[in-house]
Amino acid sequence: MKRASPLFKRIAVIGLGLLGSSLAHAIRHNGLGETVVGHDADTRVMSEARSLGLCGIYAKTAAEAVSDADLVILATPVGAFSTIAEEIGPALANGAIVTDVGSVKRLAIEAVTRHMPAHAVYVPSHPVAGTEQSGPSAGFADLFENRWCILTPIEGSDPQAVARVRAFWEGCGSSIEVMDAEHHDLVLAITSHIPHLIAYNIVGTAADLEEVKRSEVIKFSAGGFRDFTRIAASDPTMWRDIFLANKDAVLEMLARFNEDLAALQRAIRWGDGDALHRLFTRTRSIRQSIIDLGQETAEPDFGRPHGAAEAEHGPESRKKARI
Amino acid sequence: MKRASPLFKRIAVIGLGLLGSSLAHAIRHNGLGETVVGHDADTRVMSEARSLGLCGIYAKTAAEAVSDADLVILATPVGAFSTIAEEIGPALANGAIVTDVGSVKRLAIEAVTRHMPAHAVYVPSHPVAGTEQSGPSAGFADLFENRWCILTPIEGSDPQAVARVRAFWEGCGSSIEVMDAEHHDLVLAITSHIPHLIAYNIVGTAADLEEVKRSEVIKFSAGGFRDFTRIAASDPTMWRDIFLANKDAVLEMLARFNEDLAALQRAIRWGDGDALHRLFTRTRSIRQSIIDLGQETAEPDFGRPHGAAEAEHGPESRKKARI
Repeated sequence: MKRASPLFKRIAVIGLGLLGSSLAHAIRHNGLGETVVGHDADTRVMSEARSLGLCGIYAKTAAEAVSDADLVILATPVGAFSTIAEEIGPALANGAIVTDVGSVKRLAIEAVTRHMPAHAVYVPSHPVAGTEQSGPSAGFADLFENRWCILTPIEGSDPQAVARVRAFWEGCGSSIEVMDAEHHDLVLAITSHIPHLIAYNIVGTAADLEEVKRSEVIKFSAGGFRDFTRIAASDPTMWRDIFLANKDAVLEMLARFNEDLAALQRAIRWGDGDALHRLFTRTRSIRQSIIDLGQETAEPDFGRPHGAAEAEHGPESRKKARI
Repeated sequence: MKRASPLFKRIAVIGLGLLGSSLAHAIRHNGLGETVVGHDADTRVMSEARSLGLCGIYAKTAAEAVSDADLVILATPVGAFSTIAEEIGPALANGAIVTDVGSVKRLAIEAVTRHMPAHAVYVPSHPVAGTEQSGPSAGFADLFENRWCILTPIEGSDPQAVARVRAFWEGCGSSIEVMDAEHHDLVLAITSHIPHLIAYNIVGTAADLEEVKRSEVIKFSAGGFRDFTRIAASDPTMWRDIFLANKDAVLEMLARFNEDLAALQRAIRWGDGDALHRLFTRTRSIRQSIIDLGQETAEPDFGRPHGAAEAEHGPESRKKARI
């Protein structure tokens, strides 16, 4: 739904991958900013963004992009935040609001705040949304719709700036949750980072086996394995940065996962069918809760096409249906 | 596509859950048998099957179901195979072919062959197909279409019987692969059993945390966690039986998974970004191979609906599209 008057005059989006390009689409689609200024450090990404017509203005540097912007969104991997913040700090306009889309908040805050001038405000945010695809052409306007965006405001931040960032994400169709950065990092470790880690891990394990051929892994992947390949196809740089930046929470949650897995392993070794059955029954209800909250499709198999449709007409006919 | 004349006169399907009911649909839809005789040990399942009109005849016992059948398909959890084989053995017709849909083949063969009379043939098979849903109403005719079915024939089995089982699965739309039972169990351990085990495990871990509320796990599940809840919603009895029956191969593959995970854990602890990036880059290509083979949709996010469509119209409108 387009707003009567834009929330911001000039929005700078730094980083034009899946998230940045989706932001450019969502801003235009929902009328959230008069002008979008885009910048990406990768010149190939910049020319792809240009040919897609993503932004109103393309800036050669991050500093150039943020001058005169009343909202700046960092949409790069979190490992780049410190360098970008250092570069844009002196160029930020008076009263500028800086936010980001990083999956790790404690280290994002550390990296950005030290370079913030007194006349600008940093309001950390994290839209819990994405797909496994990357790059400027992967973005779409409703990526943030019906998703949660977590704000982790810094103590003493201007409440008006926080309210404007909240309004921005609500304008993208998101629901807002506010929590402190430390708790955010723990929640995301279990709901996002560990799932990605074990997905990457099992795909790696399967690829390295000698007894089972890669062609067999691929052929028989419908038995469950293919589900994991989706998030294991996510952007490598983004995910490297997340694991390095959220080390403590990831290692803590991984320890829990490993403890539980060891107990399962023991139950299998000793033939404890009751323990297995108890866990397998307990895990069923959580999916139903996710479906009930509108965060997952109720259709079997994620609603994937079945039968011949999958091989022959699936992707194409469904793409058309979406347009 | 309906055949000119059915492959079998009378097909007995023992077990009318997701697989058994899909078989009943597929047999009728593809004209593979003149009559389908159904049986399930659970009387509620039986009456549900009746009201759905799944079978031509409903038998009170497994023995009754198989008398006069020229094809018998065991579609129960593998843990029940031995008892059923013992019951149906003496009732099998002369020249009857017995097959099954079990995910574990070495123990299935052990359980079934000892009860086979000399005048019947057991041809073990495993269609690598399924969804996370259970019960007679979950089945559909094209579940096996565009999927692989693995045959693990016993040495010295009548080649004509093997050929007829092959023709049956081809008639359901499947491609056939033949291998020995031991190799099958190893392949499925990595492509299906370990993925299910770690999915069950992480959903259990997340449900048990004290620092992160269950409501938070559910809300922010779109960060990756929700993918795992799908296969962790699969039938508990079926999966208990699989882990007990394929213990050796599962423990072997789990050891590999754990070794690799320990290496990843170490890379995170010591900040080895290059090792992480290397793995995360390597795992991308395997998904593309699965898509190229027509075993996965090319659409982002499994083609899940995005935005408002997911919450409001998603499941319903897509159900209609399938009908």
